[in-house]
Amino acid sequence: MLCDGAERLNRCFVEQIPLTGHLGLAITAYDGHCLRMDAPLAPNLNDKGTAFAGSIASLATFAGWALITLLVEERLGLAEVAVYRSEISYRRPIDGDFYALCRMPEETGLATFWQTLKQTGKGRLELAVIVSQGDEERVRFKGAYAVCLV
Amino acid sequence: MLCDGAERLNRCFVEQIPLTGHLGLAITAYDGHCLRMDAPLAPNLNDKGTAFAGSIASLATFAGWALITLLVEERLGLAEVAVYRSEISYRRPIDGDFYALCRMPEETGLATFWQTLKQTGKGRLELAVIVSQGDEERVRFKGAYAVCLV
Repeated sequence: MLCDGAERLNRCFVEQIPLTGHLGLAITAYDGHCLRMDAPLAPNLNDKGTAFAGSIASLATFAGWALITLLVEERLGLAEVAVYRSEISYRRPIDGDFYALCRMPEETGLATFWQTLKQTGKGRLELAVIVSQGDEERVRFKGAYAVCLV
Repeated sequence: MLCDGAERLNRCFVEQIPLTGHLGLAITAYDGHCLRMDAPLAPNLNDKGTAFAGSIASLATFAGWALITLLVEERLGLAEVAVYRSEISYRRPIDGDFYALCRMPEETGLATFWQTLKQTGKGRLELAVIVSQGDEERVRFKGAYAVCLV
């Protein structure tokens, strides 16, 4: 059972971001700290029968974006969130349905992020995302996101 | 007028990699050193009316993949090419049709790449890709690709 915010984002994907419909992306779990976003293999195949790198990068980028969007909206209201830099390491091919797991960092930098965002309406945050197939980690992603309260 | 190899890759995109059809990606120029791949804005929109980061990352990743695939096939025959690491910097939003330009590096490392690939059937190469809208650079990408002759 997803919260209203996550259900709303899933609807927004389909209605406002055409590519996410083709990718088949959907938030499948969110507990206020950690977010899971799933993708089916079939629409994301490359010519080798494994998941297309662009699809994996899209899933990871989007999972980080969704987690920050939900957390900021819960605490401080509507926000525009945009990735401005990322790096990704494709460690092993993916040949089945796959998913991204993303959780908020726990280090002290997070307190600074919230404080800056409250005071200035703007903030920046780096998040790590792991993409797995079944229980096995396949891809590591790190994204830097800019947040702006609206 | 594209060469046969580039025309073949464009057909392969549509037939074997479903997502590229949705992204609308196509090689539009290739001269044996530099490759241009274009994407229309409409199918790649995000909720802010600009290009979705995942679409831009897909275009850049794919442009590098296509350039290496074509160059290796011309010199040494069929090859499997896969990205294994990349980083991307989204400098300014894209709000119109966009394209990626990718050229082979000219440094001496390239000679080593060709020599290793001939001798062992395997090689690794890093490529830079610039994504622009009109004459303006908007996004910088660097991808590391593994090549394996088949």
